[in-house]
Amino acid sequence: MSHSATTDYFTNRRTIRRYTDQDVPQELLEALIAQAAHAPTTGNMQLYSVISTRSLEMRTALSPLHFNQPQVIGAPVILTFCADLNRFSAWCAINEADPCYDNMQSFIAAAIDTIAFAQQFNTVAELAGLGVCWLGTTTYNAPQIAQLLELPELVVPMITLTVGYPAEEGTDVGRLPVEAIVHKEKYEPWTNDRISNMYSEKEAREDSQKFVSENGKKTLAQVFTDIRYPRANNEHFSEIFADFLKQSRFTK
Amino acid sequence: MSHSATTDYFTNRRTIRRYTDQDVPQELLEALIAQAAHAPTTGNMQLYSVISTRSLEMRTALSPLHFNQPQVIGAPVILTFCADLNRFSAWCAINEADPCYDNMQSFIAAAIDTIAFAQQFNTVAELAGLGVCWLGTTTYNAPQIAQLLELPELVVPMITLTVGYPAEEGTDVGRLPVEAIVHKEKYEPWTNDRISNMYSEKEAREDSQKFVSENGKKTLAQVFTDIRYPRANNEHFSEIFADFLKQSRFTK
Repeated sequence: MSHSATTDYFTNRRTIRRYTDQDVPQELLEALIAQAAHAPTTGNMQLYSVISTRSLEMRTALSPLHFNQPQVIGAPVILTFCADLNRFSAWCAINEADPCYDNMQSFIAAAIDTIAFAQQFNTVAELAGLGVCWLGTTTYNAPQIAQLLELPELVVPMITLTVGYPAEEGTDVGRLPVEAIVHKEKYEPWTNDRISNMYSEKEAREDSQKFVSENGKKTLAQVFTDIRYPRANNEHFSEIFADFLKQSRFTK
Repeated sequence: MSHSATTDYFTNRRTIRRYTDQDVPQELLEALIAQAAHAPTTGNMQLYSVISTRSLEMRTALSPLHFNQPQVIGAPVILTFCADLNRFSAWCAINEADPCYDNMQSFIAAAIDTIAFAQQFNTVAELAGLGVCWLGTTTYNAPQIAQLLELPELVVPMITLTVGYPAEEGTDVGRLPVEAIVHKEKYEPWTNDRISNMYSEKEAREDSQKFVSENGKKTLAQVFTDIRYPRANNEHFSEIFADFLKQSRFTK
């Protein structure tokens, strides 16, 4: 595969929220999952699982847990990627080994494995012509999602991907300049001028300005702090998630 | 790019721990980072940064923080991928918006963004002919790494990638069968028989059996619980990381 072809794909990829009626065969799905499972993983332990939701009954039950984002009903397959030390612990238990994964570092290792695997699935799925949307709402309602999917202890839902054949082109949402992301040798503290420069292109975008005016806000940043991710919500769902980590036995 | 060519790459990719003397030019590195930044991200906020370490002085200082894994000195570039709400908060602060990201959900969102971005970097780097190794030790010594790289509050080092041109082919470490990873509609609880089946191929591998005999253990699982990730270590580094999340202001 040529380097320029891949560059084009990676730079132009887009979130897809609307899907055609075409099904995604289970064999294709599992072939893509098998490819994605070659992503890097802590000590080759593969500390993750994925729950595939196809039935309308289950998608209907999942929908409100993702705040009724329409792609949960609209996509033929919903994949809930879970940090999973249950399987590994079950293997230890039948092999005269004392499982020792009820702790924060084990959760973090599993979370990292899970997201790397989910991202690799996203890539191989898109390269196979599928469209994908990530639902960050997964950790907000983790307890209810876990109950619905019957997740056992030491399993935490981390991210949900809706998957299907694209019925839209998706929107180019833009990204920050690379200088906003990279620090050489040491983190360079932000000055007001450098921050303004880094975000100026994002603020000038038509869609950003529409966000601001539609929400009756003065700045784009206020759309994030007041509307999209307000403090009260962040703190409410943080408490719920911290409790769920205890309930899952990762913390005490 | 043909589907079979990409399938080959994704299925055959391998961790590379030894690198040639060839440098990785900063322009190439930043071009790859810019491509990777098109990975999915929470609310298009890009809650991450990456610190590139090139100087021998800094690599020498980083090395013991990764338990002297030789690739920290052996690679021309070390990338520390960090969950970062400092930059976004700095932007809010100069835009009459009250930053509200000192909480667990914001940390989790940033951690997810960071790992998806790191995985996408891994993929584009490997497709460009580079070799990469992930250092999961990053969260173990997060406080010291943060101090060395001068990370400000709301920035947490999540994963480190050593990057260079491959001086080895890497080893095929194998993966679990896809049936171990996928659950349909609901999580299917493990029985001893199903667990044995899922891990039998892994246990039968020559490298697994060598691990067991070299460490004087009875089972492969004991290599993980007694040698590689013993309880005392997991718990010790969990306390340190929990403290660091407080120090970073993500938790109280």
